[in-house]
Amino acid sequence: MTVTLTAKRTLTASAGGRLNLDNINPHVKAAKYAVRGELAVKAEEYRVKLAQGDKSLPFDSVIFANIGNPQQLDQKPISFFRQVLSLLENPSLLENPEALRTSFGYQQDVIDRAKTLLADVQSVGAYSHSQGAPIIRDSVAKFIEERDGFPANPQDLYLTGGASSGVSTLLNVICDGPSAGVLVPIPQYPLYTATLSLLNAQCVPYHLEEHRAWGTDVNAIRQNLAQAKAAGTDVRAIVVINPGNPTGASLSAEDIKGVLDLAAEEKLVVIADEVYQTNVFTGEFISFKKRLRQLQQEVPGKYDSVELASLHSVSKGMVGECGHRGGYFELVGFDPEVAAQVYKYVSIMLCPPVIGQCLVELMVNPPKEGEPSRAVYEKEYNGIRDGLRKRAFALYEAFQRMEGVECQEPQGAMYLFPTITLPPKAVEAAKAENRAADEFYCLRLLDATGVCVVPGSGFGQKENTLHFRTTFLAPGTDWVERIVKFHSEFMAKYK
Amino acid sequence: MTVTLTAKRTLTASAGGRLNLDNINPHVKAAKYAVRGELAVKAEEYRVKLAQGDKSLPFDSVIFANIGNPQQLDQKPISFFRQVLSLLENPSLLENPEALRTSFGYQQDVIDRAKTLLADVQSVGAYSHSQGAPIIRDSVAKFIEERDGFPANPQDLYLTGGASSGVSTLLNVICDGPSAGVLVPIPQYPLYTATLSLLNAQCVPYHLEEHRAWGTDVNAIRQNLAQAKAAGTDVRAIVVINPGNPTGASLSAEDIKGVLDLAAEEKLVVIADEVYQTNVFTGEFISFKKRLRQLQQEVPGKYDSVELASLHSVSKGMVGECGHRGGYFELVGFDPEVAAQVYKYVSIMLCPPVIGQCLVELMVNPPKEGEPSRAVYEKEYNGIRDGLRKRAFALYEAFQRMEGVECQEPQGAMYLFPTITLPPKAVEAAKAENRAADEFYCLRLLDATGVCVVPGSGFGQKENTLHFRTTFLAPGTDWVERIVKFHSEFMAKYK
Repeated sequence: MTVTLTAKRTLTASAGGRLNLDNINPHVKAAKYAVRGELAVKAEEYRVKLAQGDKSLPFDSVIFANIGNPQQLDQKPISFFRQVLSLLENPSLLENPEALRTSFGYQQDVIDRAKTLLADVQSVGAYSHSQGAPIIRDSVAKFIEERDGFPANPQDLYLTGGASSGVSTLLNVICDGPSAGVLVPIPQYPLYTATLSLLNAQCVPYHLEEHRAWGTDVNAIRQNLAQAKAAGTDVRAIVVINPGNPTGASLSAEDIKGVLDLAAEEKLVVIADEVYQTNVFTGEFISFKKRLRQLQQEVPGKYDSVELASLHSVSKGMVGECGHRGGYFELVGFDPEVAAQVYKYVSIMLCPPVIGQCLVELMVNPPKEGEPSRAVYEKEYNGIRDGLRKRAFALYEAFQRMEGVECQEPQGAMYLFPTITLPPKAVEAAKAENRAADEFYCLRLLDATGVCVVPGSGFGQKENTLHFRTTFLAPGTDWVERIVKFHSEFMAKYK
Repeated sequence: MTVTLTAKRTLTASAGGRLNLDNINPHVKAAKYAVRGELAVKAEEYRVKLAQGDKSLPFDSVIFANIGNPQQLDQKPISFFRQVLSLLENPSLLENPEALRTSFGYQQDVIDRAKTLLADVQSVGAYSHSQGAPIIRDSVAKFIEERDGFPANPQDLYLTGGASSGVSTLLNVICDGPSAGVLVPIPQYPLYTATLSLLNAQCVPYHLEEHRAWGTDVNAIRQNLAQAKAAGTDVRAIVVINPGNPTGASLSAEDIKGVLDLAAEEKLVVIADEVYQTNVFTGEFISFKKRLRQLQQEVPGKYDSVELASLHSVSKGMVGECGHRGGYFELVGFDPEVAAQVYKYVSIMLCPPVIGQCLVELMVNPPKEGEPSRAVYEKEYNGIRDGLRKRAFALYEAFQRMEGVECQEPQGAMYLFPTITLPPKAVEAAKAENRAADEFYCLRLLDATGVCVVPGSGFGQKENTLHFRTTFLAPGTDWVERIVKFHSEFMAKYK
């Protein structure tokens, strides 16, 4: 079907229409989003070629290590989640619970959960409350309370279509024009810079400390802040991604305190992107909310003015349900009148996908100890966790074997972000193609091996350094060896 | 659970934080979106009170006639759609097709469709292509071709999270700053004015002709356009909602030609919101795409420069799957470089919900004549269509019985938008409460009857006229009589 239709002559090109590249919204034009850019498009073309039986490529599969998309890379969804969702999609299945049990192994807790959720949302085909279904926000509040040991209020929670739409909402409300600035870590997930571009607001970059496992250096942030202020930027917020994307770093309690101190002193809204909160290999995840509440108890008064927005998602962790577009953010310390504007803003888009909202509920309220689906849930969850860890370290060890490659030990998230030092001849060859050297390297890697990674320039990096980001989601380790082999040939070629 | 958590003291109010109503994004503050405003919030409060057993209200149910949300009002989803979706959510069900057939009545075409979709998307939990899964765009292209008799190209299609996000994308790309203007029908669905507010662009209103069944009057549009141009507005696009929201009007071939003539002469991008295309009672739906292609054949050259973006959705029609957030738009005649910017823009949010994308596929490619699920599909589809028609006319007839109420005969969409003429004393009483008279009327209606409708001021209306919009989705006709009784008491009170 594809072939027939796409082969038809497209009538797209217009003769002298209204819009062209030079008169559309210049902020859309200015926005950059490398994760789905040229490399990703080329990788998809290779995938289609291979699927069509093309034998001309020097590899037999494309490895999409460019994007944290676990289920594209054969990560199996968690059975409990999908069993409940299947009942929500077709509630008439609930009319024959015996057949669900005997023919499909659905347990009673699956059936009960579906009934509970349906009683609240009525139908997953109905619009919900714009902030998200009440029962689901209740579950999220309970999850946050149990995670942090501090209360959470469902009224402060906003369910979203993935964390991305939450970030967009927050930045839309916070930024009031071209002088508004937001501190963004470098390297960063490019959603932040892209959204600030769209809003014509200022990205105020602060560099993470690669030599300290990509931690935050508050003194450096203070310098960037002072420079931005001196240049007339009204810096209003600071973004922290913890665990880090693309860095994989997991922040210490001390680093988090440093950011909150700064926020309290400088009146910065803290946007804590915590979508990788369960992807932690080293130490434990500490939420900004928990740390803030601790500090508010320890030093009464000092942190009362801090405004914090924390984001979470069903896309990452051991859930990995990117395609369902589910997530939430919690507002802490926001003026209720501002929160009302956030509500109005989200209501214009009506509501986040309801089935994604239900998945948020399942994520934050999985089967408990002793419940019938618990054993399988635990086995699947731990299997995914251990697999991620294993592949992260396999990749890390491969990088240690590669000349001119340095990588921090894996701590969390789904990524490694090694530094690469390339020979001058490679840098010249890149220049001749009018490309950044890391982009040149990543393109050659894709062409030679089918492994698609994202150049560091897509995330930002210190001047005169080169990196790339790779996920450690693809199954097996064969593809890691493809990188090792390519790298040694590349280095030999440009020596 | 709700009660315990919401009863806890919220820590929301901050002491002197960064953000307040006067320093957030002024364009967010300026945006208005009445469909989910004060009335909707109050209606939800009444619903919760009733659910908690409150007996103090003068009604025993809330009728949400304010929003086109069919499944909230007990419209049953179409079985074929939901059966397929249940398999997509839990593909392990496919391992026992015999049990699906015997215990749950799943037909072979349900099973086959699920397998076909899964072969393309891999998992509904994986991010898809940012424009939407290829196989689904192929089906949409085929649907458009069959509907219009003219080719469609999957590359020109963008799947969206409901039509709302498509509108947001298009306006974001088209509007380049405060001087950019977009012609918007009055009355209109407030998504358009709200989004233009957010973009700080100009809404250039044009009035629909109530006396001509809410048709378009191109001469009036020309006047508005000339005025806006004279005032320095760079008018770039025209929005047409067909069938109309809130008006319910279905445009004639001649009205559509009038808009396309104007677009060709004045170089206006046409944004055709066609989400109600199957909700037509009178005559047949004609798409802007079809009319454009006809005119391009009839008058070679004249219409070559026309840029058209047509939107559709799974939320309306007989599908009614609002909560799934599925839809698409087609670009016709756009500069490929502009289309590339549209692609980049949507890629920042990664992809629309994949299960919603699959529902788009099912909507445009339902069971065919002779296929096993066809008979049930047809019965359900026609049942919904006939029910909508019946209730539309019941409501229309009730309006004819009401003093001072005039209503156009139902033609399409899910709404009626009657004119109401209120006694001067009622207008004064509204003024005393600092409210528009139609808002006052709608609030009293809600307080007295539990029926929630939206005042005409939420959509825009000619000066010195008053309207309200009601859906005809709620089951039964009891609630219609509630309105009749309230209206007669209201008119008597303020006589």
